[in-house]
Amino acid sequence: MSSTIAIDAMGGDFGPQVTIPASLACLKANPDLKLIMVGDEAVLAELLTQALVDYKDRISIQHASQIVEMHESPQKALKNKKDSSMRVAINLVRDGIADASVSAGNTGALMATARFVLKMIPGIDRPAIISTMPSIFGHTHMLDLGGNVDCSAEHLYQFAIMGEEVVKAVENIDKPKVGLLNIGEEDMKGNGQVKAAAKLLENSALNYIGYVEGDSINAGHVKVDLIVTDGFVGNVALKSIEGAAKMIGSQLKASFSRNMFTKLAGFLAYPVLKSFRDSIDPRLYNGASFIGLRGLVIKSHGGADALAFETAIHLAEVEVAKDVTRKISEKVENALARREAV
Amino acid sequence: MSSTIAIDAMGGDFGPQVTIPASLACLKANPDLKLIMVGDEAVLAELLTQALVDYKDRISIQHASQIVEMHESPQKALKNKKDSSMRVAINLVRDGIADASVSAGNTGALMATARFVLKMIPGIDRPAIISTMPSIFGHTHMLDLGGNVDCSAEHLYQFAIMGEEVVKAVENIDKPKVGLLNIGEEDMKGNGQVKAAAKLLENSALNYIGYVEGDSINAGHVKVDLIVTDGFVGNVALKSIEGAAKMIGSQLKASFSRNMFTKLAGFLAYPVLKSFRDSIDPRLYNGASFIGLRGLVIKSHGGADALAFETAIHLAEVEVAKDVTRKISEKVENALARREAV
Repeated sequence: MSSTIAIDAMGGDFGPQVTIPASLACLKANPDLKLIMVGDEAVLAELLTQALVDYKDRISIQHASQIVEMHESPQKALKNKKDSSMRVAINLVRDGIADASVSAGNTGALMATARFVLKMIPGIDRPAIISTMPSIFGHTHMLDLGGNVDCSAEHLYQFAIMGEEVVKAVENIDKPKVGLLNIGEEDMKGNGQVKAAAKLLENSALNYIGYVEGDSINAGHVKVDLIVTDGFVGNVALKSIEGAAKMIGSQLKASFSRNMFTKLAGFLAYPVLKSFRDSIDPRLYNGASFIGLRGLVIKSHGGADALAFETAIHLAEVEVAKDVTRKISEKVENALARREAV
Repeated sequence: MSSTIAIDAMGGDFGPQVTIPASLACLKANPDLKLIMVGDEAVLAELLTQALVDYKDRISIQHASQIVEMHESPQKALKNKKDSSMRVAINLVRDGIADASVSAGNTGALMATARFVLKMIPGIDRPAIISTMPSIFGHTHMLDLGGNVDCSAEHLYQFAIMGEEVVKAVENIDKPKVGLLNIGEEDMKGNGQVKAAAKLLENSALNYIGYVEGDSINAGHVKVDLIVTDGFVGNVALKSIEGAAKMIGSQLKASFSRNMFTKLAGFLAYPVLKSFRDSIDPRLYNGASFIGLRGLVIKSHGGADALAFETAIHLAEVEVAKDVTRKISEKVENALARREAV
C-alpha cells in the first residue's frame, strides 16, 4: 500500500543534514513510499537536486518559510510561526495530502501545533505520546511519555484504550496485556490517581493484568505489552533508563580501556561487543507517536542521527499501513457508546 | 567511635541465613562495632554459638517472638506484631540502647513502625527514603524513593533540607548541588507540584541548581549531589534503572553465549567482564535511610544476599559516625526559626 509522509525537513538539532539522508534511505527501502519534504525551498531544492531526478513522482518539496527553534515556547511557536516547517507538515496531514508527518522538532511546540491543527478524536481529552521500549521479552509499548504532566484516572483510562489499539495494530495481537505503572504490585500500593485508574481498568474490556513496577519496562517477571502511566512519570522513567544505559555503556568501555591487557581482550571480543552494542542501540527505538489526534504525527528525538530518524519515518510507515488513527477513533467511539448504554 | 546497631535478624526474604553472615563480616571488619541481633532467641542462639564466643561483648541477642511477613499490611503489622523483630529493633533505637537499626523487612511495615515508634523530627511532616545511585561522576544521592506517594511542594522542600544534611555529612562537602527531578530543564516544564517546589528551593539557602531530568540520576551533563523528587516518581525511576541494568546485563551475557567463537571471546575477556560487572554491582548500593525520624533506620533490599546486607549495615555505621539524625534535627530547627523570623 502506498503512503505519503510529510517530513519536517528543518526540525531537530541537525535539520536537513539528518532528515534528508534518512528520507532518501527510506525511499530506497520502500518503493511504495512517497515523501513531501517541508522547509525552505531554496535550501531543500539544492540538497535534493539528484533525488528529485532519482525519485521523480516520489519526492517533492513543500515550502515553509519559518523554523520552530528547539527551545521556543509552544505558545510562541503557535502564535508566531504559522509558516513553520513543523506546522506546514501537519497542515498536509489535516488536508489529507499526507497520511502522517514526522518531525524531530521541539516536543512541546510539536504537540501544541498538532493539537491545534488536527484537533482531538471526539471522546479523548488529551493526546498522549506512545513509544516502544526494548525488554527481555522483545519490547513493550508505553504511554504517556511526556505529553501530559497532570493526569486524572480518566486520562490514564483513555491512554489505555488508545494504547491498546496501537499495540493490536502494530503487533498483530488480539488482547495485549495492559499494566498500570505503580510502586508495588499489591492493591494497597500507589497514589490516589493510580488506584482510581486501576478501578476503571478492572471494569473495562481491556486485558488488564494489574500493577507493574518500573523494572517491568525492560525486565519484568512477566511480559506486558502496554504500560500505562502519566506523562511526568513516563518521561522520568524513559530518561532514567537512557541514563542507566549510557552509564553502563561508558563503564563497559572504561573496563576495556584500562590497560594493554584489557585493550587486547576488547580487540578480540570486538565483534561480540559490537553485536551487543547494536542490540541495545537506542537509535533503533527512536520515534514516538502522538495519539488521540485526528491525524498521525511521529516525533523523533531532537538529537537523532540519520539512522535514528530513518527509524522514526519507518514507524510512520507502519502506523499508516496499519491505519492506527482510524482504529483508535472507532475504538473510542465504541467505548463511549458502551458507556452511554450502561 | 564505637557504635551499636540493632539488626532485624529475621527480616527479608532469607532471614538469619543472610543477616548473620553479613553481621559477622561487619564485626570482623570494624572492631568498634557492636551488634544486637533481634529475633527468635532459640534460633539465633544456635546459629550464633561460636560468634558469641568470638565476639564476646560485641554481639548479643534480643528476643522477639514475632516476624512481620513480607506482604503484611503496615496497619496489621503495627496492630498485631508488637513483638516483631523489626519493631523490637526500632524500640532499641528509641530507648537509646542502639544508635541505629537495620532491616531487610517489608518496607511499608518498617516505615509505619519506625514512624510510630520513633516519631517525627519536629517541623518535618513525613519521613523520606534516601539512597545513593551510581553515576558517571561517582554517585548521587536521591530522595524520596517510595516513602511518600502524594507529596506537596512543601514536602519536596523538606526532603531537600533533610537530604542536604545527609549529603554534607556523608560526603564531607559544604554545599551539595541540589536538583529537582523534572521532565525538562526549562522553567516552563513540569507539573504544578514541581513548579511550586522550585520556587521554595530558589528562595532557600540551599545550593539549588534547578531542574534535572531522569538521565541525570546516572549520567547527566553536570554533576548533581542530591536529586529531590516525590516517592512515586523516585521509586519508579529507581526500579526502571534496575530493570535497564538487568536487561543490559542479560543481553551482554547472551551476546557472549551465542556460539563457540563468542564463548571463546568471553573466556578471554572474562577478567574484564568481571571487573565491569563488579563496577555496576547493585549489591554495593544496597541500603536506604529513613530520614526525618528521631532515630536512624536503614532499610535493606528484601532480596539482599549477605554482601548486600553487609553494605546496608555499613551505611548505618557511617551515618551513626557522622551523627546524621542530630544534624538533620538541628538543621530543621534552624530552617524553621529562620522562616518564623521572616
